[in-house]
Amino acid sequence: MQGAYMGKILRVNLTDKKVSESPLPEEYVRKYIGGRGIAARLLYDVMSPGTDPLSPDSKMVWGTGPLTGLPVQACSSGWVVTAKSPATGTYFRSRCVSNLGIMLKRSGYDFLIIEGKAESPTYVYIDNGEVEFGDASSLWGTTTDLAEYLLKNHLIRNPRVETAVIGPAGERLVKYAIIQCGTRQLGRGGMGAIMGSKNLKALAVYGDKPIPIADEELLKELVREQIAQLSAAHGAKRMQRYGTAAIHTLINQIGDYPYKNFWGTYFPEHEKLDGEGRVKRTIRNAGCPNCLINCWKITYVREGPYAGAWVDGPEYETFCTFGGLLDISNLDATIAANQLADLYGIDTISAGVAIAFAIEAFERGIITTKDTDGMVLKWRDEEVMMKLIKKIAFREGFGDLLAEGVKIASERIGKGSEEFAIHIKGLELPAYDPRPVKAHGLGMVTSNIGGSHALSYGTQEVFGLPTAVDRFAVEGKGKLTKFNQDRLTWGECCIWCTFPTRTEWHKPDLLTKIVAAATGIDFGGFDSALKIGERVWNVEKAFNVREGFDRRHDTLPARFLKEPIPEGPSKGQKFELEPMLDEYYQARGWDVATGLPTRNKLEELGLKDIADDLEKMGRLR
Amino acid sequence: MQGAYMGKILRVNLTDKKVSESPLPEEYVRKYIGGRGIAARLLYDVMSPGTDPLSPDSKMVWGTGPLTGLPVQACSSGWVVTAKSPATGTYFRSRCVSNLGIMLKRSGYDFLIIEGKAESPTYVYIDNGEVEFGDASSLWGTTTDLAEYLLKNHLIRNPRVETAVIGPAGERLVKYAIIQCGTRQLGRGGMGAIMGSKNLKALAVYGDKPIPIADEELLKELVREQIAQLSAAHGAKRMQRYGTAAIHTLINQIGDYPYKNFWGTYFPEHEKLDGEGRVKRTIRNAGCPNCLINCWKITYVREGPYAGAWVDGPEYETFCTFGGLLDISNLDATIAANQLADLYGIDTISAGVAIAFAIEAFERGIITTKDTDGMVLKWRDEEVMMKLIKKIAFREGFGDLLAEGVKIASERIGKGSEEFAIHIKGLELPAYDPRPVKAHGLGMVTSNIGGSHALSYGTQEVFGLPTAVDRFAVEGKGKLTKFNQDRLTWGECCIWCTFPTRTEWHKPDLLTKIVAAATGIDFGGFDSALKIGERVWNVEKAFNVREGFDRRHDTLPARFLKEPIPEGPSKGQKFELEPMLDEYYQARGWDVATGLPTRNKLEELGLKDIADDLEKMGRLR
Repeated sequence: MQGAYMGKILRVNLTDKKVSESPLPEEYVRKYIGGRGIAARLLYDVMSPGTDPLSPDSKMVWGTGPLTGLPVQACSSGWVVTAKSPATGTYFRSRCVSNLGIMLKRSGYDFLIIEGKAESPTYVYIDNGEVEFGDASSLWGTTTDLAEYLLKNHLIRNPRVETAVIGPAGERLVKYAIIQCGTRQLGRGGMGAIMGSKNLKALAVYGDKPIPIADEELLKELVREQIAQLSAAHGAKRMQRYGTAAIHTLINQIGDYPYKNFWGTYFPEHEKLDGEGRVKRTIRNAGCPNCLINCWKITYVREGPYAGAWVDGPEYETFCTFGGLLDISNLDATIAANQLADLYGIDTISAGVAIAFAIEAFERGIITTKDTDGMVLKWRDEEVMMKLIKKIAFREGFGDLLAEGVKIASERIGKGSEEFAIHIKGLELPAYDPRPVKAHGLGMVTSNIGGSHALSYGTQEVFGLPTAVDRFAVEGKGKLTKFNQDRLTWGECCIWCTFPTRTEWHKPDLLTKIVAAATGIDFGGFDSALKIGERVWNVEKAFNVREGFDRRHDTLPARFLKEPIPEGPSKGQKFELEPMLDEYYQARGWDVATGLPTRNKLEELGLKDIADDLEKMGRLR
Repeated sequence: MQGAYMGKILRVNLTDKKVSESPLPEEYVRKYIGGRGIAARLLYDVMSPGTDPLSPDSKMVWGTGPLTGLPVQACSSGWVVTAKSPATGTYFRSRCVSNLGIMLKRSGYDFLIIEGKAESPTYVYIDNGEVEFGDASSLWGTTTDLAEYLLKNHLIRNPRVETAVIGPAGERLVKYAIIQCGTRQLGRGGMGAIMGSKNLKALAVYGDKPIPIADEELLKELVREQIAQLSAAHGAKRMQRYGTAAIHTLINQIGDYPYKNFWGTYFPEHEKLDGEGRVKRTIRNAGCPNCLINCWKITYVREGPYAGAWVDGPEYETFCTFGGLLDISNLDATIAANQLADLYGIDTISAGVAIAFAIEAFERGIITTKDTDGMVLKWRDEEVMMKLIKKIAFREGFGDLLAEGVKIASERIGKGSEEFAIHIKGLELPAYDPRPVKAHGLGMVTSNIGGSHALSYGTQEVFGLPTAVDRFAVEGKGKLTKFNQDRLTWGECCIWCTFPTRTEWHKPDLLTKIVAAATGIDFGGFDSALKIGERVWNVEKAFNVREGFDRRHDTLPARFLKEPIPEGPSKGQKFELEPMLDEYYQARGWDVATGLPTRNKLEELGLKDIADDLEKMGRLR
């Protein structure tokens, strides 16, 4: 294997505690680069269709990128996990930016496949390539902070390990349980529940092997250019000051801010949650290794009822889901709720949406105190939020239902509650209303992982970057969505930070040169990059098609289709699903009627084997 | 300097950020061994009488023992801080058992003197002998966990450092602010307030130098014998299972358990706080380096309203002061309150006693809701406890008064509240009533640091160890107290764990041999050990005498002198102060009328220079 790759995949089976290594296939590197690309393909290879995501047969692929651990800007040390999500039943990728990826690579591996199920609570410790299965019985039940503390100081006794742990929610298979990695998270899609189902409380990695670089001098030069580009970007400066909360006011101004369970898109009290409030509470700017932006904001509540609460966050989405989505405008409460969610191990986006759903159902009289363990659910109620976070994480009483996610909860509750159960394919929507930002919305509808903004952020609509488009327009959004998806998918193969990649604060052509300098492999320019992104997107899509997904599932809650936005800057907007879908499938070269891939497209992308697979299943057009 | 000493004292001045080293005087080693002994003597040397403990002129001496970092049993890696306490105005020694002592030694120093006052929030980082003054502005205001996290991961970026940090309480000069060291504390006497007064948010130490051993083979052999002795001790086994909570039931059974602010000595609901409850909640047994007992119990609340709370503790004393002392019998609440106190940085003993004092004053109508920010204070109220912990730590409203300690609070409140303000010399009493355990009580009365049980635990009365004595008897308790004080003082010079030392689970003669093998210095047998203990006690006493303390201050609250115990196994007992004090001073060879030392005694102990000092002040008899 060439420079910047360690050249090895580690496979850890929890059932028989067997460990094996295999070479990283050079073909996969050339076709998928690394990161999400190779992890998606490996998952496609090792997961049989129809596997229960929470069964021992389920697999997780942990993957680094070709730049992980190198002195390259902007989150290139991020890492991904791919798996089949228990929330959606689809392919899933979750991304994180702790140092665990660097440790994995320094331990000698680019990828790690975890499979099987341990008989009893277990932790896996990878130390420079040596794998140890440890007894995690004493960790079972613990909050994420305690689990990490015990691992580092008492079980492994190496404070330098990087950890990935689940909290009580992961153990209880909450559908949106997170994996806590230091102060960051594998947040969405219930990756924590998969670990829980495997009795895997924690993964810890330590390594100090050198990571090779193909052309170190050239890389240094290119990174200098990268730093110059990033330093000149206005948006990067805002991100530096506010973190992702930089967009809180903007999203509200354009009438895209989910208010009261996506009823409205403008939060009247948004100023109370504005970025400056976070700046005041920020005790430390931090960030991924080598990043000059430092968008992580460690916030701390200095006074009042939540004094002492702190969290690495909240990110913009959590400001909303533990804020305006519930009509809560107390920033301190949002911070405290975020901390609680991290400690117990649940996703702040899905948890907030689940709580908002419950409040709306209660307000409409669809559920009553008989369903809610006697709690009166209402907007603007911080105590309700705090209590429900705990009930969900521990699956206590009413929390047990919400722990299933709003899709299943609404199906069980019925009475029309499905119409305001805000999810796509079972994944609760993040803090963006699809109605006023059509490509952004379409991206979520067609995302391979369900209701996520992360795979195809419509920056052209939201920020006018890299070039502005009319966010209410319908035409052209199918093509734009494909472009956005392919670009960000390529970005996550490399692995680039999503912010500068989607906004082009650093130029794509420079990025392709950096990858070439690090790896010694010429993956081509930006056109090739988009092609690689498209290839990976199609692998992921094929995974879903194999699981039975098609056009019928590329939809969204009735609220967005039927209810015009009632007030604010985007008043009157609905989501025009069908014409945009048609255009999107056309742009993708897929079958418009079914949304299924075509042999032509898959072969064009070098995925003949996958076309053959789908054909055998009658799922190719 | 001979084996097991690094031979150096580090002096750090925060005012001018100057650092100096001096050799550890051989004379001090021979006279005081190390640990508390040398730290007490150094404090005597560097602190001028009458210095305000919270002024820049105030000093702190951090000290290791001759066994710190060596493979010796039972807390020999503990370390001490000596200073003048802001709570008492006396000499103070606080003891801790984190790895910070080992790091200090491995960094090249036996002792560290901190003095001066930084202009702005500062941390001091000692890295293998290099001293760095860091900007701690971003840490100011933080809870202890956040401060430690930021230091290790963001400011110093070495997760292996050992830290000592203060919380919001230390910054606010709460008289009983702690210094949090990992999960352990320098708990009593307001050491955290001294750091706060110096704008010193944190100390961090890393070192990896080898620590010499004079006779390694002999040491190994002796430690094997030590392990055999400890393993055979019944009490050590109980300590292993329950930690210090082992004594919770026992102390109640003998009618010595402070109930409702020391009104009674029997807690009717004690079973709910019994050791087995803690065993159930114990997620990890831990302990000092190399200790086979592992008395640290990391407890975790798995369910209910406090689910997720965890703490290294509670120790027996906290079980009482956040439990029966307030008539609270919810173990989970006790754990959660302990965690909160550690995070905010206040001592659980003094805080509990302050809260109990406030409740009694409220119940008696001496204070009302006008004084308490509208809070109704009552027994059995967990919410009152939690709220007051926070108010004290942040000096909010009524908490500002309680943050001064019960001595000052009662003096300000007046109306007879002094009679039930439970302190000695300004230090709140721990979880032992002096009335039914006379030597134990006398030990607290005459302790050089105020109301602490730690310097002369009356094990003969409480446990019948090493030999039982009648706990209600008055005669002989003066002599016994002197013996207990001298033994434990020697123990803290070495530094031995207090539990096996006072109970003689490991035999004193063996311990003297171990110190000799480690250091290459023959300090003599147990008789010599007691003499060294006595010498150090007299140095500490001289410090206090210099500050104006004498017999008048060796007293205790009127409650213990006037009120017979109303019920339970010790019903009717009062504390017979004067005859015991007479006997104690006689045993000490001090002047009985004034409680002041004599030239004879000081010269006998080789402390002629101190006798001269006191004579000049007219404080020698």
